[in-house]
Order: sequence, then C-alpha cells, then structure tokens
Amino acid sequence: MMRNLKLTVAYDGTAFWGFQVQPGELPTIQGTLETGISDLTGEVVRIVGSGRTDAGVHAAGQVVSFMTNSTIPVENWPRALNTRLPIDIRVIAAEEVPPDFHARFSAVAKTYRYLFSISKEPNPVALRYTWWVGRPLNLQAMQEAATVLVGKHDFKSFQTAGSSAQTSVRKVTESRLISTLSGDSLVPGLTGLIAYEITADGFLYNMVRNIVGVLQRIGCGKLKPTDLAEIMAARDRRRAGQLAPAQGLWLQQVWY
Amino acid sequence: MMRNLKLTVAYDGTAFWGFQVQPGELPTIQGTLETGISDLTGEVVRIVGSGRTDAGVHAAGQVVSFMTNSTIPVENWPRALNTRLPIDIRVIAAEEVPPDFHARFSAVAKTYRYLFSISKEPNPVALRYTWWVGRPLNLQAMQEAATVLVGKHDFKSFQTAGSSAQTSVRKVTESRLISTLSGDSLVPGLTGLIAYEITADGFLYNMVRNIVGVLQRIGCGKLKPTDLAEIMAARDRRRAGQLAPAQGLWLQQVWY
Repeated sequence: MMRNLKLTVAYDGTAFWGFQVQPGELPTIQGTLETGISDLTGEVVRIVGSGRTDAGVHAAGQVVSFMTNSTIPVENWPRALNTRLPIDIRVIAAEEVPPDFHARFSAVAKTYRYLFSISKEPNPVALRYTWWVGRPLNLQAMQEAATVLVGKHDFKSFQTAGSSAQTSVRKVTESRLISTLSGDSLVPGLTGLIAYEITADGFLYNMVRNIVGVLQRIGCGKLKPTDLAEIMAARDRRRAGQLAPAQGLWLQQVWY
Repeated sequence: MMRNLKLTVAYDGTAFWGFQVQPGELPTIQGTLETGISDLTGEVVRIVGSGRTDAGVHAAGQVVSFMTNSTIPVENWPRALNTRLPIDIRVIAAEEVPPDFHARFSAVAKTYRYLFSISKEPNPVALRYTWWVGRPLNLQAMQEAATVLVGKHDFKSFQTAGSSAQTSVRKVTESRLISTLSGDSLVPGLTGLIAYEITADGFLYNMVRNIVGVLQRIGCGKLKPTDLAEIMAARDRRRAGQLAPAQGLWLQQVWY
C-alpha cells in the first residue's frame, strides 16, 4: 500500500549545487536523496522539498515528502537511508503522514537563520558556515532595523528576479538578532558568532540574503537603521544592493 | 637578508592526508602551505610544524616556521598567503622570530581539544568536527577519570606503535571536561557538544585519541572512572583499546 513519508533532513550545502535537481551530473540535495531512496527501496521516486535552497546554503531542518510502496517501518528509515547517503546529508527524522500532506504546500511557515562571524581571524570553519565579516557589527542598529520587518509587508525590494511568485506580500512573525553573549563556542575558532533569525509564512527568491545584505551594511555603519524600512517601502530590488553570501544561510525549521 | 618567520595556522583537516608531506600527489597541510609560500615568494621552502596532525585532525592554532629571503612585510603575510591557499587553511597570524626559533623544538607545551556530540540526531556539521556519540555521557565519571592524568606520568599505554619518542613520560598540566551549559550553539544542529581539553609538555603518537577512547567508554558506562588510572599504570598499549576517531581532535594552541 502506498504511504506518504515525511523526512526531516539536515545538510552541509557546501558540496552541492543547491537543493533542486540540475541538468547533467551536478550533485544536488534532491538528486542525492532520490538516489539513496531508490537504493533502499528499489523504486524510482521523485521527492518534494519544502522549498529550494541555493548552492552553498545549509539546512538543519529541511523537510521532504514522497510516496512509497516500501514496507520498511518508518522508524527504521533514518538509519537505513543514512547508510546510503554521503555524510554531509543526514536524515534526522521520518514519519508517515496523511496522503494529502505535501512538504511544500502544507508548510505554514519557515524559519531561516543567517550566521555572521565577527572574529578577527578568518577561521576555516567560520568561512564554511558563516559570513565572515571580520570586524565588529553594531548589533543595536541591526536589531532596530530588523524589527521593522515584523508584520505583513510587500517584500518586492528583497526579491531577486526570476521568481514565479504571484505576490510579493509576506507575513513575517520573527525578525531578530541573536548573539553569543556567553562568548566562546566549544568549536575552536568558531567564536564571535552573531545570528539573524527570521520566520515568515513564505519567502521570496533570495529574500533572506537580500535582507541580510542590507542588515550587514547597517551593522557596518554604511547605512542607517531607518534605511531598511525605506528600502522596503521603495518596492524596488535595485535599492537592496548586493545580497549576502550563501554559506551563512541555514534553513532552520519548516512549520506545518 | 634571511628572516625566520612564524605562522599561526588554522585548518579544517577533513580534505587532507594529515600535516606531513606524503609521497605522491596526496594533499597535505604542509605541502599546501609550502606551495602557497613558493607562489608568494618564488622561493622553494621547507616548513617545520610544531608537530604532525593525522588525516582528518583539525587545528585552531598550529604553528609553523621557516626561513625566507622575502622582503614582504610580516604584517602582510596572512592576507597575501591566504589568497594563495584553499579556504580550508587560513594563516591567522605571522611574526618574525629570532633565528634560533624552531616551531617544533622551541615549543614548551601544546593544548589539544577533543569534541564529542551527544545530540540525538547525527548533524552533518557534528559528524565533520566531533565524535558523534549520539547518547548521553556521564560527565562526572569522565571528569573524575580525566583529573588523574594531571602530573608527570608514563603514558606508554596511550602511545600507538610507530613512534620514535625516546621516553613515554610526559607532564600533563591540564586535563578536563568542558560542557556547553548554556545549551544551544548558534550553529544550527551543533548542539550537545562536550569538549575534553588536555595540555602537556609533549604528546606521544595518538596519545590524545587513545586517552579519549578510554574516556568515552567511561562516559558510556563500559568502564569505571578508576579504570583510566589502572590502564595508565599497566604501561601496555593493548589495555587502552580502540582509539577515538580523528575528526573530533583539534590542535588548539602551541605554547612557546
């Protein structure tokens, strides 16, 4: 009997050409998961993700769903599939869901986290998982700006062209800075981290990275905290300037 | 005029076959640094490291030294050399040192850190930089055992064969567990970390990984806290059992 499975997946996006299957032999998260599932079940499957992540973007809690005839008990899926996946993709949870569950269309909100490193030295781990800014950021200014995004707004200024979204209005329920007040991380060299976290009912193409690009310039004093609201109000992508690099972005959680 | 330079180097050891140059084309930290320095100065150099690190071992503060005729100001070295290195090796400091400074022989002590992950889910970042144990560890038992190592002892039980060390007596000045009481790390999925830190005037081949292997079994309840002292007293490598995996080990700091 066909079952609908939901997998929660964490990945280090460094080695992949994004989530979505690409023409040719380029490794992608989706393609690698589909190959692993086929190895495990003998079926050819097409999985659906909660959304695409770009090349270099990481995930702590991406969600995918797909139909399968496999009779493998659902609690065995993470372990069984992980042995068929490269170490930089890990299935951390599996559950059977009703037939109408769809990883993308059933999602009601998503949380992204963006990591900055302000430590003076460019540690390799920081360069892989954060935007290494290498100098202090004015957190108060960034927080002041970030708060303005909460609510229902037109985010057209933060939408990179090429998106098929019908409307650029989204509802943001969380937009805040988090810093490691405790100081040291246990991971050597991974110090001076600052996180920006944003939760919304949906995200436009490159929306987080476009917002973060502006926040970083506010943190560096190149823009004023009030500039973010002004850029948003302009509804013009050219106003947001250069987007933040992919490697600092983490898909943290998908809400259903 | 010949100058003696000291570089402090951080690296992600995942992609390298250890520190020391290997026959053939295998990428090593030493070989990659030497190629970068040759690119920068036009000289053929041979660098000396504070010690070797094995394949997969990381460093936050490895130290290397070498003689150069280059007239590049020392403060420009990190930036200039980093543009000629892969992103997983970063020079974080450079200084000119007296001619008799030697990265290995001048070192008076070293600090290593070993990371465990006890989080239930096998996050890809944890798998790359920690020993993912995936279940709780008895920190109190581990700490009780670890403390016994402080002082001057014969560490023969923790020395893997193939070492050329003349004596297996070393002086340990720090041996302790550190846990993230604060809970969450800002890096998504990198939670439930525990660090073991050890400082000594020198380390035998695989000494930290052999000690950590025993500590982990004490943490899991397979050995008693008092077993560590007993294994040390036996001066027999077979007593220490399986060594801890390389990817959890970090060369934290070299003291001069």
